[in-house]
Amino acid sequence: MKELLIELDTGAKTSLYEQIYEYIRRNIMDGRLSCGERLPSARLLAEHLKISRSTVDAAYAQLVSEGYLQAKRGSGYYVCDIGGLYDFTGHGHTDADNESGKQEGGCDEKIPAEQEVRYNFLPGQIDDQGFAYHAWRKCAKEALADLESRRQLLSVGHPQGEYELRRAIATYLYQARGVYCEPEQMVIGAGNEYLLQLLAQILGGPRLVAMESPTYLQAYHTFCNIGYTVSAVPVDMEGMQVDRIPDGITLAYVMPSHQFPLGTVMPLRRRLQLLAWAQGGTERFIIEDDYDSEFRYTGRPIPALSGITRQEQVVYLGTFSNSIMPSVRISYMVLPQPLLTAYKETCGFYASTVSKEQQMTVCRFLTQRYFERHLNKMRGIYKVKHDLLLQLLRGKFWVWRIYGDHAGLHLAVELACSLTEEEVIARARSFGICVQGMSGCYIAGNKKPDDRPILLLGFGGLTQEQIQEGIQILERCVVHHAADRTDSEKKRTTG
Amino acid sequence: MKELLIELDTGAKTSLYEQIYEYIRRNIMDGRLSCGERLPSARLLAEHLKISRSTVDAAYAQLVSEGYLQAKRGSGYYVCDIGGLYDFTGHGHTDADNESGKQEGGCDEKIPAEQEVRYNFLPGQIDDQGFAYHAWRKCAKEALADLESRRQLLSVGHPQGEYELRRAIATYLYQARGVYCEPEQMVIGAGNEYLLQLLAQILGGPRLVAMESPTYLQAYHTFCNIGYTVSAVPVDMEGMQVDRIPDGITLAYVMPSHQFPLGTVMPLRRRLQLLAWAQGGTERFIIEDDYDSEFRYTGRPIPALSGITRQEQVVYLGTFSNSIMPSVRISYMVLPQPLLTAYKETCGFYASTVSKEQQMTVCRFLTQRYFERHLNKMRGIYKVKHDLLLQLLRGKFWVWRIYGDHAGLHLAVELACSLTEEEVIARARSFGICVQGMSGCYIAGNKKPDDRPILLLGFGGLTQEQIQEGIQILERCVVHHAADRTDSEKKRTTG
Repeated sequence: MKELLIELDTGAKTSLYEQIYEYIRRNIMDGRLSCGERLPSARLLAEHLKISRSTVDAAYAQLVSEGYLQAKRGSGYYVCDIGGLYDFTGHGHTDADNESGKQEGGCDEKIPAEQEVRYNFLPGQIDDQGFAYHAWRKCAKEALADLESRRQLLSVGHPQGEYELRRAIATYLYQARGVYCEPEQMVIGAGNEYLLQLLAQILGGPRLVAMESPTYLQAYHTFCNIGYTVSAVPVDMEGMQVDRIPDGITLAYVMPSHQFPLGTVMPLRRRLQLLAWAQGGTERFIIEDDYDSEFRYTGRPIPALSGITRQEQVVYLGTFSNSIMPSVRISYMVLPQPLLTAYKETCGFYASTVSKEQQMTVCRFLTQRYFERHLNKMRGIYKVKHDLLLQLLRGKFWVWRIYGDHAGLHLAVELACSLTEEEVIARARSFGICVQGMSGCYIAGNKKPDDRPILLLGFGGLTQEQIQEGIQILERCVVHHAADRTDSEKKRTTG
Repeated sequence: MKELLIELDTGAKTSLYEQIYEYIRRNIMDGRLSCGERLPSARLLAEHLKISRSTVDAAYAQLVSEGYLQAKRGSGYYVCDIGGLYDFTGHGHTDADNESGKQEGGCDEKIPAEQEVRYNFLPGQIDDQGFAYHAWRKCAKEALADLESRRQLLSVGHPQGEYELRRAIATYLYQARGVYCEPEQMVIGAGNEYLLQLLAQILGGPRLVAMESPTYLQAYHTFCNIGYTVSAVPVDMEGMQVDRIPDGITLAYVMPSHQFPLGTVMPLRRRLQLLAWAQGGTERFIIEDDYDSEFRYTGRPIPALSGITRQEQVVYLGTFSNSIMPSVRISYMVLPQPLLTAYKETCGFYASTVSKEQQMTVCRFLTQRYFERHLNKMRGIYKVKHDLLLQLLRGKFWVWRIYGDHAGLHLAVELACSLTEEEVIARARSFGICVQGMSGCYIAGNKKPDDRPILLLGFGGLTQEQIQEGIQILERCVVHHAADRTDSEKKRTTG
């Protein structure tokens, strides 16, 4: 029976029959009751509302006579097609309300309406052609059937996430990232931002946080939202300058495998320096955000900072957003023992934010080796695109410098031209190219306005043709404004 | 190729070949490389690590000679079964590590190990026999296929949740709860506690929160974790005493449809009083947690407080944890316009915490009427259990009073006996009955120690036999300690 909640006021001026009539009429006008929908029988509705049958009969009769309802003998009352009677009160919902989602790009710029964009160079796009749909479907189906057969589907799961998944991720972390941890140290959560919020509750607050700038601004905004104060620490070619971390900082947020957006890889000596900083004070912690560590195209794999040595100051943060799909919303956090204890004391009652179904789908994807094969395949696909983009940019006189190559899903390209970054972005946009600028990645008050424009060129979601065409168009945007240079200022690539 | 991340230190005392040998050996001993697993070929590993082939050959040869690896001609190197060589360093993982999850009960008591419990009366258990597994599987499969065909599976979704799901929930809310809202006002999140955390970021803080006591302590702890200060406001038969809300309070958390744990339904006049309080100051808001509103067994359906009148002070919080399954982790929050604006400004960049797949599964479950049918069916199943439990308790001389009947999935039973609440719970536990006491639901410092014991008897997850047997056993626990009473103190039931 359709749930019709009619709040009857027996003391009101209008009769009960009128209240019922008006409620149903309004629902139909609003579109809440759709054409052809069957209403409860008069007998059922009267029972449901604890009123007399004749009252409901009267209301229904009125609605039939006015054309809102149609009575079908032996079948019931149905909502009529009221066509031109539609109530333009604005209560109806249209597809225009369906905004396109904000893409995860790490910077502050909003995505323009998609139909205008022909070349989407925003970071965070992934290649959906190469995705293992069949394997994913198989894992989803098996996970559901398995949970059902074990009578596990309905019950609430482990607050830290299902054990088998934590174990599978721990195994992957050890083999692929050199991070040693027990599944007991891991907490699975619905995205990195959620885990940072959880971590803040574990750490207590407020705290002073050191971040690089430019950086991944979603993390910056998350810290601000939860009441932390962020201090931008200067960076050099090796990342955050540890000796310039101010007093009072008790939390340092870094991406040592592949910094966003610059792509800097923090070398070992800087990592050791950072670890020494953490051990040099009480209650100091490092958050290692290991996003994007799966896709390296040259050089030795870079192990995670967390794995360098046994320590209790590093919180490791990883995600499947890039390596599987952004819509899956599974991230994981490895807590050192002191924080694990604090987590259990203060946050252990929170149920997991990821459904069991979803967790066990990913678990199977991992343990049945689909993840490994998928990563290998995607690495190959992304490498081709990466190499192509690099090749297209190298040797261009309007390219001053390239950052962050050889890993990840985007390049940062410093331009030799007299346009400002905003001007380049606007011109590109008018040609159907959506691209972000580096200036959108600086912590407030930390920008360097007289720098050359730096664009973030994400290539993950583009085809090779789109990359080629996009760069050609981009060249046309800037080429008339390329700055004069001497030979001694020739562009070079840094990693 | 299996990812083998070996951090080679060219400056170390041990040779590269020894480092490779030791890494692989340790992985095998730890169980990270399992028996029968195939290692990368020497050629591939050498390429991967950027070292000479002969170095890897030497390491592999050593491992073969010592029985860790087996070489199969034309096939590769495989990990041997090392059986008795297992390294008892504690790095292996056993099933004993798999703790049972903490049940959502709303109170502070931990669940004992499940194999000892024969009658689990904890609140929050649901009946899994009646679940529509086939329909759920169908919706999951269709949702996945549909997302895939629309090329929507991989891309990040709308931060507030998928529009179709928000619209389906909004329609349900209007018809079943009398709450009128646009999908644009709704934010979908991975659980109530997450949405409260999000709300705190939207509201800014810190704030003083008014809660009833006893109450749903998970909400209380969440507020404490996010830095809010909670004030326990006295309650009476109608719920929170609005005229006793202290100055400085800007947030009131209530469950007006069916308070946890007492089951109080806040009548209309108290709701209007609460709304008047909210409108009587700046930046005051009410959080209406409408959990458990789906299951009423007698009386008219109680519409939500949010639907009484158009207002901008009430945040409505709902969840599918009880009505579908606790493991699905989908809750939703309806924000009044001023807070919706604040949400977009401060938190609009957070990606949704629920995967698209999951959202569209629930959306189909709703729009294809499975949810409605499921609710009707479950309401019938729970009503039978509810009525049975009530019948078993009525007339018992050791039952002083029953709270919260006629709705929800538990009863609160005040006992007439001379045992303390802890003693009753312990005795029941020794008989295999797991039950929670009311004292575990009071905000710290707000307990009334000389009250009679009050037990929360959740019946959702028990069979009728288990309910009968459980109450018989409970009677044996308390019957020798029933307090003497006069006839004028006869027990009565309140709703």
